Amino acid sequence: MAHLLLIQCPDERGLIYKITGVLYAHGLNILRNDEFVERADNVFFMRTELVGDVAADTLLAQLRAALPAAARIRLADNHPKNIVLLVTKEHHCLSELLVRHAFGELNARIQAVVSNHEVLSELTGKFGIPFHYLPHEGRSREAHEAEVLAVLASYTPDFVVLAKYMRILSAEFVQPYANRLINIHHSFLPAFVGASPYTQAYARGVKIIGATAHFVNEQLDQGPIIAQRVIPVDHTHSAHEMAQAGRDVEKIVLARALKLVLDEQVFVHRNKTIIFD
Amino acid sequence: MAHLLLIQCPDERGLIYKITGVLYAHGLNILRNDEFVERADNVFFMRTELVGDVAADTLLAQLRAALPAAARIRLADNHPKNIVLLVTKEHHCLSELLVRHAFGELNARIQAVVSNHEVLSELTGKFGIPFHYLPHEGRSREAHEAEVLAVLASYTPDFVVLAKYMRILSAEFVQPYANRLINIHHSFLPAFVGASPYTQAYARGVKIIGATAHFVNEQLDQGPIIAQRVIPVDHTHSAHEMAQAGRDVEKIVLARALKLVLDEQVFVHRNKTIIFD
Amino acid sequence: MAHLLLIQCPDERGLIYKITGVLYAHGLNILRNDEFVERADNVFFMRTELVGDVAADTLLAQLRAALPAAARIRLADNHPKNIVLLVTKEHHCLSELLVRHAFGELNARIQAVVSNHEVLSELTGKFGIPFHYLPHEGRSREAHEAEVLAVLASYTPDFVVLAKYMRILSAEFVQPYANRLINIHHSFLPAFVGASPYTQAYARGVKIIGATAHFVNEQLDQGPIIAQRVIPVDHTHSAHEMAQAGRDVEKIVLARALKLVLDEQVFVHRNKTIIFD
Amino acid sequence: MAHLLLIQCPDERGLIYKITGVLYAHGLNILRNDEFVERADNVFFMRTELVGDVAADTLLAQLRAALPAAARIRLADNHPKNIVLLVTKEHHCLSELLVRHAFGELNARIQAVVSNHEVLSELTGKFGIPFHYLPHEGRSREAHEAEVLAVLASYTPDFVVLAKYMRILSAEFVQPYANRLINIHHSFLPAFVGASPYTQAYARGVKIIGATAHFVNEQLDQGPIIAQRVIPVDHTHSAHEMAQAGRDVEKIVLARALKLVLDEQVFVHRNKTIIFD
Repeated sequence: MAHLLLIQCPDERGLIYKITGVLYAHGLNILRNDEFVERADNVFFMRTELVGDVAADTLLAQLRAALPAAARIRLADNHPKNIVLLVTKEHHCLSELLVRHAFGELNARIQAVVSNHEVLSELTGKFGIPFHYLPHEGRSREAHEAEVLAVLASYTPDFVVLAKYMRILSAEFVQPYANRLINIHHSFLPAFVGASPYTQAYARGVKIIGATAHFVNEQLDQGPIIAQRVIPVDHTHSAHEMAQAGRDVEKIVLARALKLVLDEQVFVHRNKTIIFD
Repeated sequence: MAHLLLIQCPDERGLIYKITGVLYAHGLNILRNDEFVERADNVFFMRTELVGDVAADTLLAQLRAALPAAARIRLADNHPKNIVLLVTKEHHCLSELLVRHAFGELNARIQAVVSNHEVLSELTGKFGIPFHYLPHEGRSREAHEAEVLAVLASYTPDFVVLAKYMRILSAEFVQPYANRLINIHHSFLPAFVGASPYTQAYARGVKIIGATAHFVNEQLDQGPIIAQRVIPVDHTHSAHEMAQAGRDVEKIVLARALKLVLDEQVFVHRNKTIIFD
Repeated sequence: MAHLLLIQCPDERGLIYKITGVLYAHGLNILRNDEFVERADNVFFMRTELVGDVAADTLLAQLRAALPAAARIRLADNHPKNIVLLVTKEHHCLSELLVRHAFGELNARIQAVVSNHEVLSELTGKFGIPFHYLPHEGRSREAHEAEVLAVLASYTPDFVVLAKYMRILSAEFVQPYANRLINIHHSFLPAFVGASPYTQAYARGVKIIGATAHFVNEQLDQGPIIAQRVIPVDHTHSAHEMAQAGRDVEKIVLARALKLVLDEQVFVHRNKTIIFD
Repeated sequence: MAHLLLIQCPDERGLIYKITGVLYAHGLNILRNDEFVERADNVFFMRTELVGDVAADTLLAQLRAALPAAARIRLADNHPKNIVLLVTKEHHCLSELLVRHAFGELNARIQAVVSNHEVLSELTGKFGIPFHYLPHEGRSREAHEAEVLAVLASYTPDFVVLAKYMRILSAEFVQPYANRLINIHHSFLPAFVGASPYTQAYARGVKIIGATAHFVNEQLDQGPIIAQRVIPVDHTHSAHEMAQAGRDVEKIVLARALKLVLDEQVFVHRNKTIIFD
């Protein structure tokens, strides 16, 4: 059976030797191994794909004994994660994820779709996923977020995906989902933070537009970047045509970032990601 | 003989018909024709490559008579333009342009290289181009710019290229060279305006870096963008390695933008470029 | 109302003047105009987006009178075209087109999906499109193609799209659909013609893979190329992982090529396309 | 001092543990470590950047004792390698390497440039590198290759770089330089093997062109690929313009591949490369 060992700890000499020694003693095979040392803070990251019968408790205890006290050690399997999607009106990111999910290509179960508009209800229904319509009109931000949080709480998802959810979330909403809330921003961040990035891009006359998938933190569009991709544009593109062209990038980048996260290929350190892909 | 006709005027019905009518009456062949109408301001742009014997004065007079009074009409040939390069310490953009120039690939004559440091003197000398060393130390910005302007004035270049010139130019310097001063900025603008963009990019943890060639105007890094290109990076790139990787992009983007400008393929309208490539 | 004028004719002096003269006389506004002269054969191509009330018969008669006898002149509108999709087992291209169709993003009506396997029946059904299951097993190629042709004949589609249809079509099948049959090939043609291109790519150890959308002609994978796109791969990609990564490119390239064709932006000349995008 | 440990051996359980155990016992710090297992042949590859005082003989002896008998173990330093360049008439790849060399950016000493034409003599001379003009006219291929080999033998270079050397080399020439002879091919291999790839690309009407840096083996353009890169083209590009546009890609890809090789980041296994970049 396949396992994943994920380790993040202060760097010191001999870490790989000590870790692989424990694995060797357990008779485990390493299918793939990636390490990285972040030099600025001297932090060691390691992701190991293992095969063999794992005595998890013993293994973790021995690793803890072998590694610095500050080490964060996690043994994961590759069971599908639970996710909930938040959307507004645009369908392309939602469609992309629903279709991949329907064909078993997403290592996740989409538990529900939540939206502040009703337009994507029919699409969601085609794929047999519960759709929660929670309009924001006539509600305070606090009240609306409370309703969304209540729905999320009823599913206890591993990750929440903002698949073109066009409302800004408060710090209170974001904090409990630290490193578990993934957004797709329709610009090449940090260019064009905030609203209407294609309008901003058009006004600036850029020759390339892009999309950024990132973890959400308390500062708007400032969270750790997971994936980015770009496409060329020129003077013939209106803001509207940039938006159209950008959709293909957005959905592919979001799906790519989500795959990296679901496959446990992403470490977060301060405001950055370390990605073993 | 080949000619270029460049027209920019308020859009109205029948412009192409009227212009090509004048050309047809002159017995001129159209090798290539490009038009664009900027809808926001209703401005018509046309670039026509012509072959045949041109009676320039008559042609221009007839075009002026046929077109709206506000039309800007220019008949250009493809003679090499004169350019002067401003550099600091990094060689890669200078090298790229010197080599292309040496092999006749730049539709331009590099008249001189001006620098606030001496390190690129030897390289410039290898290619037989005059090098003016104008140190900025111990001088006020005004005094230093006056010296640079004096050297430029002695060459009367058609275009001035900032080939990694690492000093910010005053509005007084820039204004007389409106749309004739080309800079390479080592980021994907408008991300990372100003100093040390690779350090900024590293700090933000972006997954793509880039370079932007643009006309310089009075606002730092805000001028019309001519060309942009990007490359992927990841968590293993230090700011220094991003800078190294970025150099290949910078020099290619600058050379590309300069070629577009020298071949008269770039119109500037407000803060944007229309590029017929 | 918007119209499209599409002209292909032997090049000669004054063509643009003569064409725009007819348009001007009809009081038509040119929204966008593109021309190209293929120098090898001296053929002129022009695509004009027009707005205004068109007296189509008069306009075409006057254009015919003004242009060389060999000119091909077509006045099109932007009504949705009819298309039929042929698929086998892979869903990603079909999903992409069904979703775009469902949200009105495809300037076409998907009349039906035809497949030699049954697996995509459920997906197609979700979107309310007729699905024709025509198994090829136990039938000769001729017999099977005859069945497919019969279904196509019942719909009289403007274009037939091979959205990962994994059977080679005979010349007899292809000929009646000249320039109306669009295929997505899962390699960067002309690399890896024929079966299992990802296996071929893996065996060759390439560092980039891609996809090609092209018109189908009688020679396998030799028809005019409409669009191509690529992505980087490395030694860690198995042939299977290349295939997975390639799917995102395939569907986007096919959707892009189909959009170009449906928007009448593609001319075919010999074995190449001229694309005004 | 920095060292590189390069290991290639049959895969078995515990390899990383055993190797890092030897390194740990020697008190060596691992700066960076990369491993890969080629599953088809079950071969393990590892590249380790080390810092510390290395007792090379003991270290290698202990590694040999710890690893399977078939293991290939190499301890390298990062001293500059010696290289000789072979060129014909085109300057862009040569210029790129000469400039990088002049500014200490190439981890190599360019010992000499050899050419079957004289045109690049002046450029080479500017940078103070010996230029050997060995015309092929009036000589048999054998005789000409013998002359080139004699010059190479006088320099004993670590690597020979075909920087747009436009002659096909015999198997006899190639064999002694197995995995040490690097070529830049001006197409996206395996598309357009052999002569005039841009003419082939133009004739096929491709929408993307590229360049491939690869090790040379006895079969024309079939050796292990090190790096590839592409750029978009369209119907307006003549074969000549494709060639012009392609040059920027060629020189960057060759420089990139050479850097990977000089930094010992490339393993060759059968007809493929494993690249730890």
